[in-house]
Amino acid sequence: MYAITPRTTATRLRERMSYDTELVHSVLDEAWFCHLSFVVDGEPRVLPTLHVRIGEVLYVHGSTGSRPLLGATRQGEAGFPVCVAVTLIDGLVLARSQFHHSANYRSVVAHGRATTVTDPAEKSAVLTALVEKIATGRAAGTRPATARELAQTAVLALPLVEVAAKVRNGPVGDDEEDYGLPHWAGIVPLRQEFGEPQPDTGVGELPEYLRAAVTGVTA
Amino acid sequence: MYAITPRTTATRLRERMSYDTELVHSVLDEAWFCHLSFVVDGEPRVLPTLHVRIGEVLYVHGSTGSRPLLGATRQGEAGFPVCVAVTLIDGLVLARSQFHHSANYRSVVAHGRATTVTDPAEKSAVLTALVEKIATGRAAGTRPATARELAQTAVLALPLVEVAAKVRNGPVGDDEEDYGLPHWAGIVPLRQEFGEPQPDTGVGELPEYLRAAVTGVTA
Repeated sequence: MYAITPRTTATRLRERMSYDTELVHSVLDEAWFCHLSFVVDGEPRVLPTLHVRIGEVLYVHGSTGSRPLLGATRQGEAGFPVCVAVTLIDGLVLARSQFHHSANYRSVVAHGRATTVTDPAEKSAVLTALVEKIATGRAAGTRPATARELAQTAVLALPLVEVAAKVRNGPVGDDEEDYGLPHWAGIVPLRQEFGEPQPDTGVGELPEYLRAAVTGVTA
Repeated sequence: MYAITPRTTATRLRERMSYDTELVHSVLDEAWFCHLSFVVDGEPRVLPTLHVRIGEVLYVHGSTGSRPLLGATRQGEAGFPVCVAVTLIDGLVLARSQFHHSANYRSVVAHGRATTVTDPAEKSAVLTALVEKIATGRAAGTRPATARELAQTAVLALPLVEVAAKVRNGPVGDDEEDYGLPHWAGIVPLRQEFGEPQPDTGVGELPEYLRAAVTGVTA
């Protein structure tokens, strides 16, 4: 369970706010990328980037020269204020009324003060976790990062303290008087699937650990 | 072509920054949702929400009581500083080295000052465009919003002036000396697909315009 600052966003029909650890972890772990927001000269900025969760810390991959990385490095242990959102869309909600059209989704928003990861062992663990997220066995099936590569890798760490998950699932929520309308209504599920792997030149057969991970529905 | 403020984020291997109007439009139009960031008491916040583009304006759906809506309404014509990101992931890039693992993606980041849409006709056009994004014909196949529903609908308008698109596509980019390693490398494509539509109770057959839109690969 996480603490959360008050939110003014109304919780809508069939949406629920949750601080449920298992839900938060599952959304963070299923998503391939996040959106990292921060403030530059009083103005908001947001960038997509890769992330991985290890325990109760969300690690966000950055560019060494990027604003949030420079900001976090400058702030040191005090940390750099960030907000990270991860969203998975599960379906389109087609109501009889235009007004009640919506989407089924699962999202997590975490905010707090991110610090720059400087310890090579911690960075190495993050890179390992990032490739293991693709498939268990990938870390063993790749060349680990060198000291020089670790120095070039920019990673922000955000402890999962102020976190909220929000979910909409379930059916259409039309107004009572609209159920008699002749319009089609229902849920159109959306899911992310892997396509056929495209081997790089000169590589052998897709190893078993990868085949198992990338065959079929992923989200 | 759009203007853009300088970015410090390094343009990496096979990524390209672009202010190409057609690319920006196609990414915004293909994505079902965006991430809206803004500043509250000097700290960054980011929320997932639905969007639709009409011409050179990005419309973002909001909650009437939410911070960005209240902020934009308070600011009036001066607008409320926001940054909106839309990201489509196209594949995982599996390199021989952990360091060169990456993702293929297309993203658009737009920033500027958003205003609250107050004109009912403009709001109505946004709702229509939102449902037409699902399938051409959906607006005609649904009940339009009432005046009361339009009043309850919160929409932010962000003119597409400061916009950047960023794309990574193409193959793995390992270091020269790693190509001889025995590790599997390649691209694992990712795509968003529709599942089997789940009709609400009492509705008829899926109309042709919807069947055409939601059958097969969408992204």
